[in-house]
Amino acid sequence: MKIAAEAERRFLEQVFTSLHFTDKDAALLADTLVDADLRGISSHGINRLAWYVSMIKEGTIIPENHPELVRERPGSVLVDANQNMGQLAAAFAMGKLIAKAKQTGVAIAVVRNSNHFGTAGYYTRMALKAGLAGIALTNTRPLVVPTNATEAFLGSNAFAFGFPAKPHPFMFDGATAAVSGGKIQVKDKRGEPLPGQWVVDGQRQVVTDAKQAEEILAAAAFSEHQQGGGLLTLGGADEVNANYKGMGNSLVIELLTGILAQGSISADTNTGKHDFSQFLFAFDPAFFGDPAVLEADATAMLNRVRQLKAVPGKQVWVPGDREYRLLEENQRAGVEVDDKTYAQMEEIGAALKVEVPKEA
Amino acid sequence: MKIAAEAERRFLEQVFTSLHFTDKDAALLADTLVDADLRGISSHGINRLAWYVSMIKEGTIIPENHPELVRERPGSVLVDANQNMGQLAAAFAMGKLIAKAKQTGVAIAVVRNSNHFGTAGYYTRMALKAGLAGIALTNTRPLVVPTNATEAFLGSNAFAFGFPAKPHPFMFDGATAAVSGGKIQVKDKRGEPLPGQWVVDGQRQVVTDAKQAEEILAAAAFSEHQQGGGLLTLGGADEVNANYKGMGNSLVIELLTGILAQGSISADTNTGKHDFSQFLFAFDPAFFGDPAVLEADATAMLNRVRQLKAVPGKQVWVPGDREYRLLEENQRAGVEVDDKTYAQMEEIGAALKVEVPKEA
Repeated sequence: MKIAAEAERRFLEQVFTSLHFTDKDAALLADTLVDADLRGISSHGINRLAWYVSMIKEGTIIPENHPELVRERPGSVLVDANQNMGQLAAAFAMGKLIAKAKQTGVAIAVVRNSNHFGTAGYYTRMALKAGLAGIALTNTRPLVVPTNATEAFLGSNAFAFGFPAKPHPFMFDGATAAVSGGKIQVKDKRGEPLPGQWVVDGQRQVVTDAKQAEEILAAAAFSEHQQGGGLLTLGGADEVNANYKGMGNSLVIELLTGILAQGSISADTNTGKHDFSQFLFAFDPAFFGDPAVLEADATAMLNRVRQLKAVPGKQVWVPGDREYRLLEENQRAGVEVDDKTYAQMEEIGAALKVEVPKEA
Repeated sequence: MKIAAEAERRFLEQVFTSLHFTDKDAALLADTLVDADLRGISSHGINRLAWYVSMIKEGTIIPENHPELVRERPGSVLVDANQNMGQLAAAFAMGKLIAKAKQTGVAIAVVRNSNHFGTAGYYTRMALKAGLAGIALTNTRPLVVPTNATEAFLGSNAFAFGFPAKPHPFMFDGATAAVSGGKIQVKDKRGEPLPGQWVVDGQRQVVTDAKQAEEILAAAAFSEHQQGGGLLTLGGADEVNANYKGMGNSLVIELLTGILAQGSISADTNTGKHDFSQFLFAFDPAFFGDPAVLEADATAMLNRVRQLKAVPGKQVWVPGDREYRLLEENQRAGVEVDDKTYAQMEEIGAALKVEVPKEA
């Protein structure tokens, strides 16, 4: 079913204020989830609400806390999320970076004691709106099996990069793993097999059964009792296809998040302590040239990519194209909510006495 | 055959001074090539000398020029390589970044009007030696076929990242493509087929014949007459294995190099104008925590990766392990030079009256 984005926003704002977030924090949290749903990134939208609510109830997320500036230099910021939602700390940190990057040209932030922060792309879009370009990284629970290994250790570690272009920015946003766990849930829901080299079992054999894959990932991410296996790195099952480069990309993010933050690395977030850490980066393209020229040059390059000769029946697309197309569609038609998520919304709405949006 | 690294260094310094580089520039250029050979990255060592010499002779590289600081801010540097070797401009730019990052915490540089700059890792090691962490990126000639496309457009665009660890730094350094062109040359030289999804032809069919692959890449990189095909992005031939993420990584580098530098994008370097551009980044980990603790934490994580359970007969290794092992070995035993390269060294030595190193 579809619900109107503005109805989703009102519902979320009321839910979050009922859970003791400030009005401002509730508005930001609602915006991050509505934004994800509008862009068709349902795995990071209202789909996650029940999970956030359960983490609030169990004390993993503390809504009354506020992100804190631990220290700063002209180009660097260290933020403590104080165990509140990652979205609040990341937006706070990116706000600081934007101000600094306009002064010095570039700034970086590390966020510690954080939680899940929604889509990484949200914070790069904050930079874009301020006329800057940006990067956002996060570690995650342990889901990913390094090259040749038979057990999960690395996070699916997201990487987002935004750069000005027309008719919409270049927006690369996704897990560094071959795929995200969300894609596997979708296959399971549809009763379809996994079509590629996405997940391996404890003998490093490729798994095609979506339900089996979900069980492997759940054990790796949420228990001490790994059965082995997990998501593959970009590059797939075989070393010969350079899956160690996917592993390298993921390790770079481990170093820039859990290690720099002196928090947990992904491998240690499966039980007990499960803080996540984020790394943010913003820089001012205007230092290097006229922003209008840079944007036009980027646009021209991306248009040439879109027009490359392709195999019959296929087209070449650029990262971000799909989500900006869906953004436009869903602003008109409403956002898609699956039955399970809607049932969770009804339960949460009943418990907190918040009216649930009707079908659009 | 093997030659002593110090003999290689003396030979290269004399060759470069004979070609009208300053003594200081010649020493730096020699060091970058010896360093690559010591690390077993032969594709970026003395192997490239004949190619550099030919570019000097044809005026693509101008040894008398010097890199120039176009402008700077507290965290940003724009450098014009003035058509000299990329190594000289990149080392100049990284020197500036190190000084700035120690003040502000982070700094970035873009280098324009540049040429091939050797291994990207060299400049991240400059940052490491100064107690910082670093990133280096470059675009290249057009070699890589985006997802679903049948013609090359993207560069193989290198990405290097260095972070302090023991007994050696974490050092991730390589092409963002599935493999580099150098790996295919090695297969060709050995008469072996290509073992993975490395190269496709103009119908996007995977090519296993190394010679055919080299012809496809040469046409894409060095002529206007593409026959179609090229290197695959990380993720391989099929969209289902997320090769669009490899494409995304490559496009990020195109934007940060050719576009930000307002130089050529990789696609336009196959004929005529063929400037490359580089992007460098250095930051101070000490801002975020005690450097000894960060290094110890990184080391502990990397050691856990090395000790993960693996498929029988295989082990899990960390990016950089192989090159630091070879560095130690080759410092003792000398660097490997193939017959073709040695013949080129003899030719260059004879023309410039420089004595060629003997077998070690």
